[in-house]
Amino acid sequence: VARPSALSGYPEWLPAQRAVEQQVLDTLRTTFELHGFAGIETRAVEPLGTLLRKGEIDKEVYVVRRLHADPDAGADEDTLALHYDLTVPFARYVLEHAGHLAFPFRRYQVQRAWRGERPQEGRYREFLQADVDIVDRDTLAAHHEVEVAQVMADALGRLPLPPLRMQVNNRRLIEGYYRGLGVGEAAAVAATMRAVDKLDKVGPDAVGGILQAEVGLSAAQARGVLALADITAEDASLVDRVEALGVGDPLLDAGLAELVAVLDGTAALQTDRFAVVADLRIARGLDYYTGTVYETRMLGFESLGSVCSGGRYDALVDDGRTTYPGVGLSFGVTRALAPLFGRGLLGASRPVPTCVLVALLHEDDRPAADALARTLRGRGIATEVAPSAAKLGRQIRHADRRGIPFVWFPPADPAGGHEVKDIRSGVQEPADPTTWQPPADDLRPAVVLA
Amino acid sequence: VARPSALSGYPEWLPAQRAVEQQVLDTLRTTFELHGFAGIETRAVEPLGTLLRKGEIDKEVYVVRRLHADPDAGADEDTLALHYDLTVPFARYVLEHAGHLAFPFRRYQVQRAWRGERPQEGRYREFLQADVDIVDRDTLAAHHEVEVAQVMADALGRLPLPPLRMQVNNRRLIEGYYRGLGVGEAAAVAATMRAVDKLDKVGPDAVGGILQAEVGLSAAQARGVLALADITAEDASLVDRVEALGVGDPLLDAGLAELVAVLDGTAALQTDRFAVVADLRIARGLDYYTGTVYETRMLGFESLGSVCSGGRYDALVDDGRTTYPGVGLSFGVTRALAPLFGRGLLGASRPVPTCVLVALLHEDDRPAADALARTLRGRGIATEVAPSAAKLGRQIRHADRRGIPFVWFPPADPAGGHEVKDIRSGVQEPADPTTWQPPADDLRPAVVLA
Repeated sequence: VARPSALSGYPEWLPAQRAVEQQVLDTLRTTFELHGFAGIETRAVEPLGTLLRKGEIDKEVYVVRRLHADPDAGADEDTLALHYDLTVPFARYVLEHAGHLAFPFRRYQVQRAWRGERPQEGRYREFLQADVDIVDRDTLAAHHEVEVAQVMADALGRLPLPPLRMQVNNRRLIEGYYRGLGVGEAAAVAATMRAVDKLDKVGPDAVGGILQAEVGLSAAQARGVLALADITAEDASLVDRVEALGVGDPLLDAGLAELVAVLDGTAALQTDRFAVVADLRIARGLDYYTGTVYETRMLGFESLGSVCSGGRYDALVDDGRTTYPGVGLSFGVTRALAPLFGRGLLGASRPVPTCVLVALLHEDDRPAADALARTLRGRGIATEVAPSAAKLGRQIRHADRRGIPFVWFPPADPAGGHEVKDIRSGVQEPADPTTWQPPADDLRPAVVLA
Repeated sequence: VARPSALSGYPEWLPAQRAVEQQVLDTLRTTFELHGFAGIETRAVEPLGTLLRKGEIDKEVYVVRRLHADPDAGADEDTLALHYDLTVPFARYVLEHAGHLAFPFRRYQVQRAWRGERPQEGRYREFLQADVDIVDRDTLAAHHEVEVAQVMADALGRLPLPPLRMQVNNRRLIEGYYRGLGVGEAAAVAATMRAVDKLDKVGPDAVGGILQAEVGLSAAQARGVLALADITAEDASLVDRVEALGVGDPLLDAGLAELVAVLDGTAALQTDRFAVVADLRIARGLDYYTGTVYETRMLGFESLGSVCSGGRYDALVDDGRTTYPGVGLSFGVTRALAPLFGRGLLGASRPVPTCVLVALLHEDDRPAADALARTLRGRGIATEVAPSAAKLGRQIRHADRRGIPFVWFPPADPAGGHEVKDIRSGVQEPADPTTWQPPADDLRPAVVLA
């Protein structure tokens, strides 16, 4: 066996990086639960029919087959495939278990997903997502569109990341405005949204050209579409800016009120780490969004695209008798962390949980050292015993190599006392295993953001 | 879309069950880290060549392919497949990242694995495993074989499970004893172990027959083999019982000493929830074990087989220049929990993390209710706001249906005070959001084992 090499698109973390990721996941989970979201996990596979019915990404789906399955059997509806997001499996979970769930149902879900994309920074074949969704039966109150933004603002604002900026828009606002402009047909509305989605790539002149040449809008209509897409606002001044465009429509008014509610409802949660702004060019590609849509940029890492996206969907979860409208947001854990790890901007103060290494004078002392380690662990201090009774200098070097900050020396004779050495400062002091406490910062690996 | 149905072999939990599983995972992680084990995760896929080189289970491997990959391309060494355990990916991880790891390297890993087995209770196609391993470079001290048993005893003894009994044996002890009996050749030793592995299924008479007819042992040798397999012991009395069989061999003595060390080293951690016994019929199927081997039965659920297994391996991790001997144990989280969930023996006190529902008198009060919820969350109390300003009776019924124990009533007018109602007892009392504390048992869902 030669030394194996990495697989492109399948990032894997060293222990210190995983310690950071784990603390990120802990913060997400704790915050989601404080907001009353229950955690679930779904199986990694879904029938291909379920996955393809919802998505636009059939080329990226990974099919799963037993090695000795009939090679001539083609893929059909029931062939299993790895899920490519957590929204489609969640929709299936809600339908399958609806009789056991209380609505509105609030869940978070932190799992891997897989896509056969060309790997690049921010895009991986296997990646970790953290989603929150709220679904109700038949109708979903608009305040839940505010609520998921509040939850993510609260959660992401606590993470060791560069500042985040969530951009929100509202499909009803856009659709109402387009109708008010005279873009009447649903197909033209959708084509207009798709053209506006290209603004960042090709610029307003090219989009204006597409709107006239391909969608068939007048020059005035195209100017109106671009004027709306140019608006950003951090508060209710949004209303004045939209009204100044002089387009009137009841759906526009309703969508505008919902968007202002998201800004108002997240105002108390915004910090210099996490901001929420209305940005009327955001549309999100997926057809199934019907109300608020969300994207999130990480400052200095805009080329990654959005690290936290989602929206309201009214018809995604439907078993033919009952519809379960919902709203959700998905944070791309791997997308956000991998570039920070890759550039050495995010790490942990040490790669091991261990706070104390118990030194061994003789191998015969191991049972006593085990007992001492049990005492420290019982007090919440992560402890391991030296792997061998080597010379003490070598044991200290072992702790140093592992990143363990303290070495504990049990008494060399029954009359002696315990001592503990901070190997970074070299300070060695008497210590009582039933009361000694490390500095709070040393108890666990600390996350360090450059 | 019709209501989807469950996939056989892919268990999925309702929120209350997931809350239990999550608490189990938290306990495992906390304990593993207190013992100085660092958490890692590996990608879900490995090249088929890596998976098949180590295992005996090629028929169970799931191959992963892009939906639009060339259907005529056969599976080769580099074809990706889902890992079927966490040991083989860990071995690959150690070789790939050896330059970045400090040895002895101690890691835990909690992930799903996949096997295309026929589903039955205790055997699933997708399942969660929790592994601990220690690997060193070139040589591995025998005390680590004690240590992994200590870690698992400490971790599993804290779980809400029926009592567990870990059975340990030692391959060197067995091999030395067989040699002492005159079963000289390696092939005969391996065949003898395989025959003894059938004891539980076919009984001693049949195994004795196999040993003579197929392995070629004498009647006296076969009796000697069965006599050893009949020994169980909880302490160092093991030595007397083995010596009473009158077989002498240096490898036997070394293995016996190692096995006694495991019993002695775990004595302080044994409780009525977790016991460790030497059981000299345990061999474990996998060829790669070379020292201590471990299996664990759950009382009343013996038909599941072992829920926590492993052993010492000397040659599993090897890149042609350096060998990394190791020892590890793998706890089958799904195998242990699924039957308890299935029989309704294990559950949570409520299916939601939420402790408090803030009632709404008018929809206009939502911002104030949000602020109140923020205050409670800031004090670690999971809180959600009522989904609508329905009649208070309906809001209380909503809390009841969700399993939320407390409903909070903000003041109806500025002169009034806050009140909180325990909807189980009906007791309603004045409360201050900056100081009110629920009973400790109500703060989080509690795990309930019948």
